[in-house]
Amino acid sequence: MYSWMKNVRQVEPYVPGEQPKCTDLIKLNTNECPYPPAPGVEKKLKEFKVDCLRLYPDPEASVLTSAIADYYQVKQEEVFVGVGSDDVLGTAFLTFFNSEKPILFPNITYSFYPVWASLYGIPYETPKLKEDFTIRKEDYFKENGGIVIANPNAPTGLEAPLSVIEEIVAKNPDVVVIVDEAYVDFGASSAYPLVEKYDNLLVVQTFSKSRAMAGMRIGFAIGNSKLIACMNAVKFSYNSYTMNQTTLALGVEAIKDDTYFKETLSKIMATRERSKKELKELGFSFPDSRTNFIFASHKKVKAKKIFEYLKSKNIFVRYFNQPLIDNYLRITIGTEEEMDRLFANLHAFLDE
Amino acid sequence: MYSWMKNVRQVEPYVPGEQPKCTDLIKLNTNECPYPPAPGVEKKLKEFKVDCLRLYPDPEASVLTSAIADYYQVKQEEVFVGVGSDDVLGTAFLTFFNSEKPILFPNITYSFYPVWASLYGIPYETPKLKEDFTIRKEDYFKENGGIVIANPNAPTGLEAPLSVIEEIVAKNPDVVVIVDEAYVDFGASSAYPLVEKYDNLLVVQTFSKSRAMAGMRIGFAIGNSKLIACMNAVKFSYNSYTMNQTTLALGVEAIKDDTYFKETLSKIMATRERSKKELKELGFSFPDSRTNFIFASHKKVKAKKIFEYLKSKNIFVRYFNQPLIDNYLRITIGTEEEMDRLFANLHAFLDE
Repeated sequence: MYSWMKNVRQVEPYVPGEQPKCTDLIKLNTNECPYPPAPGVEKKLKEFKVDCLRLYPDPEASVLTSAIADYYQVKQEEVFVGVGSDDVLGTAFLTFFNSEKPILFPNITYSFYPVWASLYGIPYETPKLKEDFTIRKEDYFKENGGIVIANPNAPTGLEAPLSVIEEIVAKNPDVVVIVDEAYVDFGASSAYPLVEKYDNLLVVQTFSKSRAMAGMRIGFAIGNSKLIACMNAVKFSYNSYTMNQTTLALGVEAIKDDTYFKETLSKIMATRERSKKELKELGFSFPDSRTNFIFASHKKVKAKKIFEYLKSKNIFVRYFNQPLIDNYLRITIGTEEEMDRLFANLHAFLDE
Repeated sequence: MYSWMKNVRQVEPYVPGEQPKCTDLIKLNTNECPYPPAPGVEKKLKEFKVDCLRLYPDPEASVLTSAIADYYQVKQEEVFVGVGSDDVLGTAFLTFFNSEKPILFPNITYSFYPVWASLYGIPYETPKLKEDFTIRKEDYFKENGGIVIANPNAPTGLEAPLSVIEEIVAKNPDVVVIVDEAYVDFGASSAYPLVEKYDNLLVVQTFSKSRAMAGMRIGFAIGNSKLIACMNAVKFSYNSYTMNQTTLALGVEAIKDDTYFKETLSKIMATRERSKKELKELGFSFPDSRTNFIFASHKKVKAKKIFEYLKSKNIFVRYFNQPLIDNYLRITIGTEEEMDRLFANLHAFLDE
């Protein structure tokens, strides 16, 4: 024991995500896109002028906020960017949740919300989802210090109707409501058009799933320009330069190719719909996913057993050893070929 | 006034650094390297496989921590990396300074230290530098919650002897002592060899200055493996993926080319020594810089006037409108040609 240890911040121990090193594997455990980024990304990378790396990047990330604003037809000052949506969400928690009242988010949702709340000393309550994993909107009508809703929710994959999101935002004009839309592009409805109507709505999205750029770490938020200005003030107060030169250049290319984006999405959604049929035939049940993953439970065989069997076959899906969801597997939608191999292995294991 | 504003975190307003848009300018205001990154960086970029961008980066940044460990001949588990040294320093503050006692850093030093202290609720005291801008080591021998020393110091450019740093570290075994060595490569002595002897020493460096990679945002720390493990635990607890795929790949190339690194440093140091002579002839005085900038004051003409004149000539240096240092200019060492133009303009203005 070192004597300086007494002043060290105590945190929950980190459980690293599985980073299998073998080569012939199927990785369906972290909701990455099975297809490469837009072709413009590669072109831009090859043309990139390395000499500019000696200079600090634009702290305001203007080329990227501008490209995102163009794509979503909002104003540039309504866009905030960060190092993945984790950075954007963390900054939003730090900026907006400085109240004595608890913030609210569902008891089953993205696991980082309680982490950021603890990090920044924010009290929180976690209303229970219904049995079918849907949100009970009335749980969010009581006094609170802010609200966070992942929509579609993780890891369930379920979408709350936009009308429910709007009602929650409308009933809470005195606090900021964050809608975390990491998976919205796979067939769900985004709340971002509502930012013109509600100054307390912050919509957060990411380039990591639908735009195949998990490796570049780009997340963004769309909200009223005053909300965004508050986030920028906080961010600039402690770290001005976070988005590097390559991220800015490649991010622009990833967002501007709408044709490629739509093609990628429709391939993934077609594979997802086919996967739903296959899983049903195999004896799985699951909430109706609007994401690039399916959260599935088998009627007879325990999730953990299936997880371990697949792993032994070099197929990695996600298993959460947690109350309420410990009999579910979160299966990322891969390519058709990857899913073929998954289903063949599931048949071999479950049909015996 | 929006009603959600009451819960918004209050921060010091951000004063953006000057990002002049004109083309024929000389930028000597942010201590960037005037030479490009190592040739291997460009080569790696051209070979980079864009398809990997769809995947999350290695959260442990192993290729980069390994390359840094190789270069400095330390163990990989003694190296921590972050998004610029600001991220590394901020994480170190959050990790190690959880005491009721104040942390200590000089009254003239890097301006982000009080910002991070405030952000994380860390009490702090700022012992005064001597008149000649040197540290009074005895100021750091009293009870405290931690110590941060920039060495060489910013913006003065002055190096404290390694023996003074060692004495401060040795007298404070119960707290972590951070030595921020952003500028150490330009002729100063690094404390990193002392990490084997002192488990409470954390040495922080950056790729932004000497390695010409400000645009990529790479900082790192070297310390006892237990110190580094504490930082990783905190970092992973709230944001696992911060170093993106291109950063990891290009960072490795930037650090492994020692020949190019040494050549760049000796060019910059030669220009600095010549610049000291020129500035002296022009009537400036300055602490003896061991960095890539000179912190200079003119015997007759106010710093602010010189700053404004140079700006009108498209030459940007840094002026701090702050008590104690408001008659100084911080002038980054550029190429020989850039410095020629600087001196010609200074002669035109000061000799008249």
